[in-house]
Amino acid sequence: MKKKLADLEPPQLLIVIFLSLILIGTILLMLPFSNKDGISFVNALFTATSAMTVTGLVVVDTGGAYTLFGEIIILLLIQLGGLGIMTFAVVIFMALGKKIGFKQRLLVKQALNQSSLGGVILLAKKLLLFSLIVESIAVVFLAARWVPEMGWSKGVYASVFHAVSAFNNAGFSIWSNSLSDYVMDPVINLVITLLFIIGGIGFTVVFDMWRQKEFKGYSLHTKVMVVGTLSINVFSILMLFILEYNNPGTIGSLPFYGKIQAAYFQAVTPRTAGFNTIDTGQMEDASLFYTIVLMFIGGGSASTAGGIKLTTALILILGTVAFFKGKQHAVIYRRSIRDYVVYRSLALTMGSIIVVMSAVFILNITEKAPFLPLLFESVSAFGTVGLSMGVTAGLSTLGKITVIITMLVGKLGPLTFAFAFARQTPDIIQYPEEDIITG
Amino acid sequence: MKKKLADLEPPQLLIVIFLSLILIGTILLMLPFSNKDGISFVNALFTATSAMTVTGLVVVDTGGAYTLFGEIIILLLIQLGGLGIMTFAVVIFMALGKKIGFKQRLLVKQALNQSSLGGVILLAKKLLLFSLIVESIAVVFLAARWVPEMGWSKGVYASVFHAVSAFNNAGFSIWSNSLSDYVMDPVINLVITLLFIIGGIGFTVVFDMWRQKEFKGYSLHTKVMVVGTLSINVFSILMLFILEYNNPGTIGSLPFYGKIQAAYFQAVTPRTAGFNTIDTGQMEDASLFYTIVLMFIGGGSASTAGGIKLTTALILILGTVAFFKGKQHAVIYRRSIRDYVVYRSLALTMGSIIVVMSAVFILNITEKAPFLPLLFESVSAFGTVGLSMGVTAGLSTLGKITVIITMLVGKLGPLTFAFAFARQTPDIIQYPEEDIITG
Ligand SMILES: [K+]
Ligand SMILES: [K+]
Repeated sequence: MKKKLADLEPPQLLIVIFLSLILIGTILLMLPFSNKDGISFVNALFTATSAMTVTGLVVVDTGGAYTLFGEIIILLLIQLGGLGIMTFAVVIFMALGKKIGFKQRLLVKQALNQSSLGGVILLAKKLLLFSLIVESIAVVFLAARWVPEMGWSKGVYASVFHAVSAFNNAGFSIWSNSLSDYVMDPVINLVITLLFIIGGIGFTVVFDMWRQKEFKGYSLHTKVMVVGTLSINVFSILMLFILEYNNPGTIGSLPFYGKIQAAYFQAVTPRTAGFNTIDTGQMEDASLFYTIVLMFIGGGSASTAGGIKLTTALILILGTVAFFKGKQHAVIYRRSIRDYVVYRSLALTMGSIIVVMSAVFILNITEKAPFLPLLFESVSAFGTVGLSMGVTAGLSTLGKITVIITMLVGKLGPLTFAFAFARQTPDIIQYPEEDIITG
Repeated sequence: MKKKLADLEPPQLLIVIFLSLILIGTILLMLPFSNKDGISFVNALFTATSAMTVTGLVVVDTGGAYTLFGEIIILLLIQLGGLGIMTFAVVIFMALGKKIGFKQRLLVKQALNQSSLGGVILLAKKLLLFSLIVESIAVVFLAARWVPEMGWSKGVYASVFHAVSAFNNAGFSIWSNSLSDYVMDPVINLVITLLFIIGGIGFTVVFDMWRQKEFKGYSLHTKVMVVGTLSINVFSILMLFILEYNNPGTIGSLPFYGKIQAAYFQAVTPRTAGFNTIDTGQMEDASLFYTIVLMFIGGGSASTAGGIKLTTALILILGTVAFFKGKQHAVIYRRSIRDYVVYRSLALTMGSIIVVMSAVFILNITEKAPFLPLLFESVSAFGTVGLSMGVTAGLSTLGKITVIITMLVGKLGPLTFAFAFARQTPDIIQYPEEDIITG
């Protein structure tokens, strides 16, 4: 009955590797030289899961509870989880001089969410190289700001940690108030946000923009992602700027220029980054609700971001608009969207809604906190965002386990989902059609 | 430029008639002999809209603020709104001996959510007769309980008011605590719930069950509605019974038999009825969240109920399951569900989510109440349910207007939607297809 590892289908194998790495990370984080005052199994598991799923929710203060060694383990888990463990596997395979077979290629294809097998190995290499280059450039800029403030060793370390965490949309910080000390610092604001926007828009988009210099040469996916990301970000900045303008707990007391920067940061961070420069729990309910919607949507496909993805949300809206207009197909940039793409988006979104609702429901039973912080926490975990209204540390053990599972499903769900789709075969039995009245 | 009324398309004409009746109702409710201490325009408009859309949310206590005359106006609006104003129009036309033309038939077809024109007039007549018979039988049972308690005139009046309100899923009560005084009364519990379940399951279902005596003879729609309604109700009873078992604010202090009755009533009322026998605001957050989901789903198509409808929700779930299983079509009772039915359900649900989210967002700006009661209020208004955690009376004027619009969109939206669908024509321009990566 026992299946060998090699017999597993690609997504199953990925899930096994993923869970194994989380368990190894958990054990490493529990070692005496990883943490300062000891840590419970469930808290270590929570930290390892949050790092590997690049969520950034924390039950213990990262800088306060873990030693430098512990923080480095967290950073490794982030880099592994963010870039896709298979990218590393490919490189290791090649470094060992082994031939990369069909099965390995299929794994990488799966991990990178690509529809064809050709060139995935090359893509994985490019991806790794690209990540290292972007992270390195960012480290230089961040160090220019932090080395003068904290000295060489602390400054460089803070720069590396936050660059890796930001590019991978992990949201982990070594500081308990995230980046709140730098709410008015234009360098930190710009470098960190650029990192997570580039990391979260999708590698295919970045590479397409690199190759094609003009907008009209972009693929449909790239066009949609570029315009969509810009639009949603600009709209969100305006929204949060207006809603929070007079809120003394957030940007109310900042000067105009500071308000703009803080609104900008808080507008772009929900689409998976998870850092914050103001106290999330102090925001207005309307802003928090808006942030929940952004967290659910998330970033770009084949990126370090989570959520249902911007394209998924857009296709559902386009499909709805087309339907209301009496059109048979959704159209964007003079291209029709195929029925199966709409179906795929519908299924992914419905599945996501059910997972989030289950988490909200369970947390409202296990926790004493009000509804909104628990809804916020559930969507943040599912979208692997990492923002919190401040309830994470106070979660009950059952609540922590619920959030752990939600993060895992949020990260691995779409993978399994993509595979289920790839398996689609013609139905063997064809049943006659009959109408059901709806609406 | 002025369009004559007769030139309007069916759904536009229905909307005009609907809004006109609400305005007439508003004016009538503002007359000195309709209310006891005067009433503001916005409160009268709220009451008229809530009655005409059969929602049941109240900004003023119905029994406390309105005279008997005012209450009768509310009851007339409920009967008009619930049964479909066109049913009445048909009967009046015929009473006047006028020939019913194609246009009138189209209107009735629209109002009754039927896909074919044939027999709609007959259906309208049957519908009216059926309603009167069911309401009359219910009045007898209710009077048997209330006449001994309140005497003849008050007892019969209370019976007529609640029978009409329940059958039309209106949720209006002449008592400020709804039916809370009868939480342990089996007759009231059974008669009221049977009324709103029959009224809310859909006329086509009731008539199909009347004609066909065996389950296998039922249409697909009837099968789905019967099994779906039973399943969701039984599951909801269990859910609320467990969640509220120890809650002293709701069923905690009731004896076992009372707990069962209260769980039953609160489980079936969210799918549009809107009466309550316990204090909704005292329920556990998990129960309230579950109730919100039920309110959003609503009752059956072509019924007095609101929400996206049970079949719409079911089709989305079946479509999602089929997709995850790698099937091309959702299948139920050996029948395939057509792509366009899935699309229709998707569009209706997406549109509904956007409307509800907008209401939640606006209310969180205009009101000081916590998030959950405002989310609850928005979904209750959209689904024309009428349950409230107790914030309705305290709403600001802007909040009241938001809820009024939400009730109107919740009631009239699906109508316009159905028509948009009927207008669907082949796309004139066919664009090539191109993939977008999602998920
Ligand atoms: K994150
Ligand atoms: K109602």
